[in-house]
Amino acid sequence: MAALVCAELEQPSNSVAEIQSVLSAQQTAWNRGDIDAFMNGYARSASTVFVSQDEVSRGWETVRDRYRVKYSDRTKMGTLSFSEIEVTMASPEAAVVLGRWRLKRTDDEPHGRFTLIFKHLPEGWRIVHDHMSGAPS
Amino acid sequence: MAALVCAELEQPSNSVAEIQSVLSAQQTAWNRGDIDAFMNGYARSASTVFVSQDEVSRGWETVRDRYRVKYSDRTKMGTLSFSEIEVTMASPEAAVVLGRWRLKRTDDEPHGRFTLIFKHLPEGWRIVHDHMSGAPS
Repeated sequence: MAALVCAELEQPSNSVAEIQSVLSAQQTAWNRGDIDAFMNGYARSASTVFVSQDEVSRGWETVRDRYRVKYSDRTKMGTLSFSEIEVTMASPEAAVVLGRWRLKRTDDEPHGRFTLIFKHLPEGWRIVHDHMSGAPS
Repeated sequence: MAALVCAELEQPSNSVAEIQSVLSAQQTAWNRGDIDAFMNGYARSASTVFVSQDEVSRGWETVRDRYRVKYSDRTKMGTLSFSEIEVTMASPEAAVVLGRWRLKRTDDEPHGRFTLIFKHLPEGWRIVHDHMSGAPS
């Protein structure tokens, strides 16, 4: 069984720039201590997934609550930077992003990698799946 | 700028079954101590990516060599099981897989999660991106 499907394809270069600007806005929001604005990068959906160590958080609100608890004040949030961002289009509507994260804090500097799945939603490109890992402390 | 693109779409149910059978074959290969057969699940490409902690291995051979060094004998390999496999089609040619992994060994039992990006290649569905994480030990 097969079906013929036709779709309008955006130029991928626009998609990459839009994804990079979502990540840049997340970084800026984090660094002014605004977790709610940081969370705008994620799809407001019950199926949005955040994975770290052996834990999965499901749903936009659950992911936001995890950030709120884990980074409950400015000192814990520190200064976030993303680098070595690589965007690979999986389709015109989906992209895989590999990158590095680093948190400069007074007492430590955790760092690691993330794999993000972005989807093109009516409101723009949003993270639907975030898998992050870090160096052992 | 936009282009009209038409493609024949396979039934997604076939794709999900094929992806599940690749993972099942990986598990079987691992559990008979056959890393080379396990590696058949990955795309034989220089862009195949494996992410763990703050490290990225790039290229099928680099990923294989990492497994060979880290799991240099049957005791270190233990018994691998995958569970709670969730396959989400990102397009007819790409899928995101979230799952749990567990290694039963004589002295420990490490476990965690993985996010895989599968692509539909001429040889079948293959992993092009693997991000794994585990519980802190």
